[in-house]
Amino acid sequence: MSRAKVLTIDTMNPTVKKVEYAVRGPIVQRAVELERELSEGMKKPFAEVIKANIGDAHAMGQQPITFFRQVLALCSYPELLSDSTFPEDAKSRACRILQSCGGNSMGAYSASQGIDSVRQDVARYIERRDGGVACDPDNIYLTTGASDGIVTMLKLLVCGEGTTRTGVMIPIPQYPLYSAALAELGAVQIDYFLNEEKCWSLDITELQRAVNEARQYCNPRALCIINPGNPTGQVQSRQCIEDVIRFAAKERLFLMADEVYQDNVYAEGCQFHSFKKVLFEMGPEYAETVELASFHSTSKCYMGECGFRGGYMEIINMDDEVKDQLTKLLSVRLCPPVPGQALMDLVVNPPQPGEPSYGSFIKERTATLSALAEKAKLTEQVLNTVQGISCNPVQGAMYSFPRITIPEKAVKEATGQQPDMFYCMKMLEETGICLVPGSGFGQKDGTYHFRMTILPPTDKLKILLNKVKEFHQRFTQQYS
Amino acid sequence: MSRAKVLTIDTMNPTVKKVEYAVRGPIVQRAVELERELSEGMKKPFAEVIKANIGDAHAMGQQPITFFRQVLALCSYPELLSDSTFPEDAKSRACRILQSCGGNSMGAYSASQGIDSVRQDVARYIERRDGGVACDPDNIYLTTGASDGIVTMLKLLVCGEGTTRTGVMIPIPQYPLYSAALAELGAVQIDYFLNEEKCWSLDITELQRAVNEARQYCNPRALCIINPGNPTGQVQSRQCIEDVIRFAAKERLFLMADEVYQDNVYAEGCQFHSFKKVLFEMGPEYAETVELASFHSTSKCYMGECGFRGGYMEIINMDDEVKDQLTKLLSVRLCPPVPGQALMDLVVNPPQPGEPSYGSFIKERTATLSALAEKAKLTEQVLNTVQGISCNPVQGAMYSFPRITIPEKAVKEATGQQPDMFYCMKMLEETGICLVPGSGFGQKDGTYHFRMTILPPTDKLKILLNKVKEFHQRFTQQYS
Repeated sequence: MSRAKVLTIDTMNPTVKKVEYAVRGPIVQRAVELERELSEGMKKPFAEVIKANIGDAHAMGQQPITFFRQVLALCSYPELLSDSTFPEDAKSRACRILQSCGGNSMGAYSASQGIDSVRQDVARYIERRDGGVACDPDNIYLTTGASDGIVTMLKLLVCGEGTTRTGVMIPIPQYPLYSAALAELGAVQIDYFLNEEKCWSLDITELQRAVNEARQYCNPRALCIINPGNPTGQVQSRQCIEDVIRFAAKERLFLMADEVYQDNVYAEGCQFHSFKKVLFEMGPEYAETVELASFHSTSKCYMGECGFRGGYMEIINMDDEVKDQLTKLLSVRLCPPVPGQALMDLVVNPPQPGEPSYGSFIKERTATLSALAEKAKLTEQVLNTVQGISCNPVQGAMYSFPRITIPEKAVKEATGQQPDMFYCMKMLEETGICLVPGSGFGQKDGTYHFRMTILPPTDKLKILLNKVKEFHQRFTQQYS
Repeated sequence: MSRAKVLTIDTMNPTVKKVEYAVRGPIVQRAVELERELSEGMKKPFAEVIKANIGDAHAMGQQPITFFRQVLALCSYPELLSDSTFPEDAKSRACRILQSCGGNSMGAYSASQGIDSVRQDVARYIERRDGGVACDPDNIYLTTGASDGIVTMLKLLVCGEGTTRTGVMIPIPQYPLYSAALAELGAVQIDYFLNEEKCWSLDITELQRAVNEARQYCNPRALCIINPGNPTGQVQSRQCIEDVIRFAAKERLFLMADEVYQDNVYAEGCQFHSFKKVLFEMGPEYAETVELASFHSTSKCYMGECGFRGGYMEIINMDDEVKDQLTKLLSVRLCPPVPGQALMDLVVNPPQPGEPSYGSFIKERTATLSALAEKAKLTEQVLNTVQGISCNPVQGAMYSFPRITIPEKAVKEATGQQPDMFYCMKMLEETGICLVPGSGFGQKDGTYHFRMTILPPTDKLKILLNKVKEFHQRFTQQYS
C-alpha cells in the first residue's frame, strides 16, 4: 500500500499553489469550525459566529425581491402560470423568458453568450442607465457571476514571457479575485495604491508611477478599476474616470471596470458614473478606440442574489477576431446557469410604472438601499469613536475598511502571521466575529486594516460594532 | 481614430487560440444563421432546423421531472410552502434544502465545496449505487456541471516543461471538452483509440501503446475514461474497468472517470459499473492507492437539466495537501450555482417508496429512459439500412456515432475542410439537420463519422433518420 501518489503538493500545478483568496481563507475555515463546536455544545465566550467577512446579503437576513422570486418560481414550474395568486406582470415576464429557452425550459442549454432576449434587455438597461448611449446586444456576454467574466477577460490578455509577460494593474487594496486570477494565469500583478488619506481615491500620478516602474520588468496591458470600491467603499468622481480613461488611452491599456456595486452608492454628493458612459461622452477619439470590458452581477446592489451566479459583461471596441475567440472559449463551458440568466433579466428589466408589481418592487428595493445607507453611516461613525481605529466614509459598496493601530508588542507576537491576521483571529476566538484582515486585500507596508461588511441587520450591526470596539480596546491594552 | 488595439489576435493568449470545441463550432453557428433566415421568411429546402448536435434533452421536447421542478419552485419562492396543491414530500425536501442555505435562501453563497447536506445526500446515493461501498461526504465537491469539475482536476495535474510536461490520455473519439481543456492548459494530449470494430471497446494493449509512445515526449500523469461513451455510446464491461484500473496503477496514472451518462444504459446485457465500485472490490492494494476522480451531472440521464449547471465530483485517494489546494482554488469562484446544487440533491435523493410523489416520479423517469432505449435501437437500425453508413449499437449515453463512406470525389472537393465537415455542412444546407462531424471528436485517419443525438421525439427522429438516409444516398450518387 506504499505506492507513491501521482498527484502531490510537489508535483501539482505550481501556479495553483500561488493562488490566495483571503475572503474565504483560514479565518473563515476557523469560523466554520467554531460554528460546529458551538453546535456541539462546546463553551465559547460568545453565543454565535457572525460572518461579516463576505458580501452575502441573504445570509445576513436580507430578503429577496418578491417579484424576482415569483418569476423564478414560475419559470421553474410553469404549471404555476395558471395560479391566480401570481401577479400578471410576473407571469408575462416568466413567459417571455421561457419562450427564449430551448423547449421553453430553463433546463435547456442557452447560447454560450447567453439568452438572446436577456442580452437585449441588458443592452436596453445600459442605454437607460447611461442616458441613451447606444449599447449593442452583441457586445453583451452573460456570465456565471462577475468573477467568471473577469477571469475570462484576463485569460484573453495573458501572453509573452519574461519582460514581455502581460502585466495587469490592480488597485491596492483590491478584491482578491484579481490577485488570485493573475497568479493562476501566471500574469504579472502591477499594484497601484489608492490614497487612504483622500478617502481611498485614485491618483493618476500613482497610476503613472506604477506603470513606469512595471515597464522595466513586464508588458502592462490592462488596468482594472473597482468602482464603487471593494474593499474600500469609495465612489469615483466623473473627473477621475475621465482621467483614468485618458491614462489608459495614452498608455495603451485595456480597461476593465468592475461595476458590480453600481446601485450601492450612499454618500451625499456621490453618484455612480459608468466607464462606458464617460468614455462615450469623451468623443470619438476615445469612444472609438479605448477597449473596455465592464462587469455586473446579480449578487450585489439591492438584490444580493449571490447563489444564482448571474452576471454580464459588456465589451467595447474589442477586435472582431478576438471577439470570435472569446465566444469560442465560452462555448467550451456550454452556457452560464440559466436561472442566473433569468434573474439577470429581471434585474435589468424590473417592474415598470403601471405594472401590478411596481409598487412593492420599489418599496422593497428602497427599503434595502436605505437600510444599507444607514448602516454605512453607522459603521463609519461607531468605528471612528474608537481610539486606534480610523475609518473613511463608506461612500458605496458593502464594506468598511478601517485602518487599525496594532501595538508593537502584538506585531512582535504575531510571528509567522500578518499582524492583522493575528488581530482578526484573536477577535474571532474572543467575540465570534469573522472579519478579513487587510493583508488579504493588500495595503501599504506598516499599515493594518480589516474588511467588515455592513450587511447585518441594524440591531445586530450595532452589537457587532460595539463588540469590535470593546475588543480593540482590550487588545490595545493587552499589548501596550 | 487609428490607434492600434491593445488586444488583437496576434497579441492574445496563444493557448486560447488553440482551443477547439466542435459541438458548438462553425456548423452550429451556421445552423443558428439558417434559423434566423427561416424566421425572416427566406426560402429554404426545409421548414425547420433540427439541432441534433448536442445532448440538450429539454430543447428536444423532453419534459422535466415534475417533482424536481416543484421543489425548485418552492425553494425559489418559499411562500408556496403554504400552497396546498404542492405535495408534502416536495415541501419537506424544499425545507431541508432551504435550511442548509444561508438565511434560508438560495440567494446566499454556499460553501465553496457545496452545501453540506447536499454532499451528504450525494455520498449516500453513491453508497447505494455501489452496493454499500463507503463514501465520505468530504470527498464530494459540487460543481458547475461536470465540465467545471473535469477542467478543475486537469488544472491541478498540469506541470513541467518540454519532455516533463504533463500528458493526459484521452479516448479517440472523445468529447471535445477534454482536448479543449488540455489545449488551454498547455498540457499534452495523448490519444488512445477506441476499437470501432469491437463496438468502440477499450483495449488495454492500445492504452499500453499510447503511454509507451508518449513517455518519449511528455510525462503521462492521467487517464480519462468516458463511460458510457460520448460520442461512441459503448458501455464498458466490469472486466474492462478492472483492467483499466490495473493499468493505471501499474503506469502510475491519475484516473478520471466521466460517468455523466450512468443512468443511460439501454443495450441488453450491458450494465453500468462505476470505477469507484470496481476499484474498491479489487481490494486494498488498489482501493487504498489508485487516485480517482469521478464526475456526474444533472444534465444527462433521465433529467436532462443542462441549463441548471449542476454536478459533483468524488475524489478518491487524493493527497491531503492537494485536497486543501483544490478547496482553496474552488473558493476563488465562490460557489457553484445554488439552484444547480438543489437539483443535484433531488437527483441523488428522489422520492422514496411511500412518499406521495414516488409513483409519478417513477412513471416519468421510466417513460423517458424507455423512450431513449427505443430511440437508441431505432437509430442503429435505420442507419444500418443505408449503404455507406455503418453504426455500432448505441449501448448507452445519448448519441450514435456512425461511420460514413465519403466518395473520393467529395474528399477532393472538400479542400481546406475536413471531408466530414464538408458532408455535414452540405446536409445542414440541404435538410436543416445539424450534426457534428467526426473530425470534431477525433477518429482514425481516413475514417469519417458524424455524431447525432438520439434525443428528438420518436416521430421526429424517424423523419430525421429518413432525411439523413436520403441525403447520404444523394450525396454518394452526386460524388460517385
